[in-house]
Amino acid sequence: MRALVFSEQGLEIERAYPMPIPGDGEALIRVVQAGICNTDLEITRGYKGFHGVLGHEFVGIVEEIGGAVDRKEHATMLGKRVVGEINIPCRQIECAYCRHEVYSHCPRRTALGIIGHDGIFAEYATLPLANLHLVPDEVSDDEAVFVEPLAANFEMLEQMHILPSERVLVLGDGKMGQLAARVLVLSGCEVLMVGKHTEKLALVAGSGVKTLALEDAEQLVQQGERSAYVVECTGSARGLEMALRLVRPRGTIMLKSTVAEPGTLDFSTIVVNEIRVQGSRCGPFEPALRALRQKRIDVSSLISARYTLDEAVAAFQFAVQRGNLKVLLTMEA
Amino acid sequence: MRALVFSEQGLEIERAYPMPIPGDGEALIRVVQAGICNTDLEITRGYKGFHGVLGHEFVGIVEEIGGAVDRKEHATMLGKRVVGEINIPCRQIECAYCRHEVYSHCPRRTALGIIGHDGIFAEYATLPLANLHLVPDEVSDDEAVFVEPLAANFEMLEQMHILPSERVLVLGDGKMGQLAARVLVLSGCEVLMVGKHTEKLALVAGSGVKTLALEDAEQLVQQGERSAYVVECTGSARGLEMALRLVRPRGTIMLKSTVAEPGTLDFSTIVVNEIRVQGSRCGPFEPALRALRQKRIDVSSLISARYTLDEAVAAFQFAVQRGNLKVLLTMEA
Repeated sequence: MRALVFSEQGLEIERAYPMPIPGDGEALIRVVQAGICNTDLEITRGYKGFHGVLGHEFVGIVEEIGGAVDRKEHATMLGKRVVGEINIPCRQIECAYCRHEVYSHCPRRTALGIIGHDGIFAEYATLPLANLHLVPDEVSDDEAVFVEPLAANFEMLEQMHILPSERVLVLGDGKMGQLAARVLVLSGCEVLMVGKHTEKLALVAGSGVKTLALEDAEQLVQQGERSAYVVECTGSARGLEMALRLVRPRGTIMLKSTVAEPGTLDFSTIVVNEIRVQGSRCGPFEPALRALRQKRIDVSSLISARYTLDEAVAAFQFAVQRGNLKVLLTMEA
Repeated sequence: MRALVFSEQGLEIERAYPMPIPGDGEALIRVVQAGICNTDLEITRGYKGFHGVLGHEFVGIVEEIGGAVDRKEHATMLGKRVVGEINIPCRQIECAYCRHEVYSHCPRRTALGIIGHDGIFAEYATLPLANLHLVPDEVSDDEAVFVEPLAANFEMLEQMHILPSERVLVLGDGKMGQLAARVLVLSGCEVLMVGKHTEKLALVAGSGVKTLALEDAEQLVQQGERSAYVVECTGSARGLEMALRLVRPRGTIMLKSTVAEPGTLDFSTIVVNEIRVQGSRCGPFEPALRALRQKRIDVSSLISARYTLDEAVAAFQFAVQRGNLKVLLTMEA
């Protein structure tokens, strides 16, 4: 099959990559459409030291299920359109994380296209049935590709109680910031997106999210208008420093950017102002699917370009350019 | 009066420092005994840029009350032994922090011996009556000096729900670590103090706190024995890095050390492991007084030396030496 493979030779399309074979309880998925995530770009710069097929944001069709054929999951999943959670835990009873269903933190986990498991920039991929979620008819293929990153933003609502009477400041107007703002505004709070790019800030115009140019953000501090919550989505090691200026005492900074380089920080501000810095990664798929089905979140304006799998190297070159948002890959030949 | 003053000339005893005059609703306190805190030492290195009388941990007697003399507070406070909260807020209705009784974060606050208000290494000091707490007879002067730093450790229990079924790792065996361990063990959880000094680790022997030498802490990581909570009390910018290794995924690091120098940090670990980093500063006095009155916390073993106010400069020189814990100052001539 064809696949986009990252190796020591760099990024290239292989035309005769071995077809994956689904193990017991695993689905063989024909990938229909996929999205390029910042994590994919970071991996091509060495993040996580991953080599293999990249990609983890996708929608596909279950073509086959490995192992015993008499299971009832076959009937519900075979031939269906699905999205998939990316963490593949050990599911052993000895594992405290799996026993408590905290699968995304299983220490022996692999992760689709990130840790020890080939990803989905390919014609086919495998995932355990337990990772899959059916996509309702009301959710388009374009929308379905956003389920995984949207779920990662619903994770913030899983982790903490965000008071709807407070303001959330989203720092960064890139892919993550755009989705964070769209998810958080649903909870009823005032959401203010702060970013550098006028055209990206304009994308949230219809969603009820307010916007502010980064150069004007310092005025908030001067006016004593610091926010109870700041979501750090800048993708830069300096973002946390900025977030610490914009958050008010006893406030919370949600860290979403995985930045490979270490950053410098004035820890005493965290102590004196009693700030909570909360790391946040993968999240629940069902709320994301629900919000898309109910048409509460618009993602179509975030699609910057579409490429075929054969054009995937060019798609990466486009995605890495500043100013571009989500780049989709279609797997059909 | 005599006072220990920090100025551009350094630290010295002034013998004719002006007596403080209590304003309306303020108490004039005759200081009986005081404790030297790491914050005092940091101030002599330039922290907060404070000049004036140092000191904020004390027990004293209310000698006089400023303003109208017909208030009922006079009867309850005059001549009584008190300890005092160190943050002096604006208490204006326009101030959102004061309106919500979050006095320790009032942006216009002063702080006893730290920000814009003379401290208590002196024969007399002033504080608003609202800051004072009566000391029960069962609590000795020695114990009372520990109320403020103990309260700062009860703050952790105010900020979050610590599950008694989990383990708390206290990183650091200095003054802060000693008090943190003694407070946290009360909540029923397993407390493990990790430190460099055998003789300091030995001080918690009778309190139910377990101990581990710092060089053995890496074994916890290797054995998958990371902790749900890590309290960072090392007083070093590198402490947070170590705490990130010792905390388990979805765990919490409580930051207690105010370190002036900025530190470097791998932010992606916070994101990937979804760690909560929680800054923590001043806390509630009543639980600290209650624990001392009920003899649940022993602080006597933490007293390294006693000096008179006249010997205060020598006391600071002793307190700054590694290995020494709490140094007390007695104000009587």
